[in-house]
Amino acid sequence: MQELKERILTEGKVLPGDIIKVDGFLNHRVDCALMMRIADEFRKYFDIDNVDLLLTAEASGIALTAICAACYGKPMVYAKKAKSDNIEGGLFKSEIFSYTYKKKVTLLAAKDWIQPGTRVLVIDDFLARGEALKGLCDIVNQAGAELVGIGCAIEKGFQGGGDRLRAAGVNLKSLAIIEHAEPGKIVFRDDE
Amino acid sequence: MQELKERILTEGKVLPGDIIKVDGFLNHRVDCALMMRIADEFRKYFDIDNVDLLLTAEASGIALTAICAACYGKPMVYAKKAKSDNIEGGLFKSEIFSYTYKKKVTLLAAKDWIQPGTRVLVIDDFLARGEALKGLCDIVNQAGAELVGIGCAIEKGFQGGGDRLRAAGVNLKSLAIIEHAEPGKIVFRDDE
Repeated sequence: MQELKERILTEGKVLPGDIIKVDGFLNHRVDCALMMRIADEFRKYFDIDNVDLLLTAEASGIALTAICAACYGKPMVYAKKAKSDNIEGGLFKSEIFSYTYKKKVTLLAAKDWIQPGTRVLVIDDFLARGEALKGLCDIVNQAGAELVGIGCAIEKGFQGGGDRLRAAGVNLKSLAIIEHAEPGKIVFRDDE
Repeated sequence: MQELKERILTEGKVLPGDIIKVDGFLNHRVDCALMMRIADEFRKYFDIDNVDLLLTAEASGIALTAICAACYGKPMVYAKKAKSDNIEGGLFKSEIFSYTYKKKVTLLAAKDWIQPGTRVLVIDDFLARGEALKGLCDIVNQAGAELVGIGCAIEKGFQGGGDRLRAAGVNLKSLAIIEHAEPGKIVFRDDE
């Protein structure tokens, strides 16, 4: 998606530890008009009429996913990252490693809200090593739901998480795949 | 807002500890079409044309706020609850007590994304003791920004946080104020 790539080039910052900071438009301040255009772009790759539910993980995936869900007229669920008193009863759980927080995190989703057979589109803002997405796919699987696909805004291609998901047969579309990043230089993978 | 009150009555559950669970449509599974109607409802109480930015706190405020921001054509910022490696540089910080997690939490927002003079509408899904909102107001104040008002979906009126904010002169509108809650019985405050 050309507009997204241009925003990454003009506003993104590459920080030590292969962190690509785009918190001015994606995951701290959120350019909600851009998110609506990203939602439109995903329509090219996924048959939204055959999606029942959008699924993401808190916290940074929620804004984009909520806007996509509103645009599509679908409900969403966000998996939570820590057990709070407000989640009772049956839960799907998947343990992942968070490279952002450098610790194990358990993704939780209430069984009530993902029924067997539900056609689920997973959405996330960022794909790096793919840990969060693996956890979300695991939850879809535990629920006996159907994974329609995964839509990501930005993928760090050089960290391999996206290619591992593709190799496993997942219908994954990232709108900007970064192949190489160093301060002052970001290179995207060629689109097909 | 009658529709929201009816959803609370038909789907809400009162749990021990004065917890009102509405995670089937507001803050785990999210009914995004309802969120769009809530966004419309807020328009009755706030002059959206004179708002520059919507502000909320992660994680449960993000979905509603993102959808409001998309409907209004405005950007949003969500304050983060823990320092991650992806936030560098200058931060506004406000320490609050989270009754959900029973510990102190620091709300963080990057100084870059809330400029002095910005007209800020704070949005949240839930208002109980008002700790998160106090923290967000504090951040608006630190930024030298202007608090236009606060819009909440659900307020637990009996916990007093909303009335304290009103007494302090804040333009606060909650769309459903719960005055009394026990299992099987939820009573709303009369609308004006």
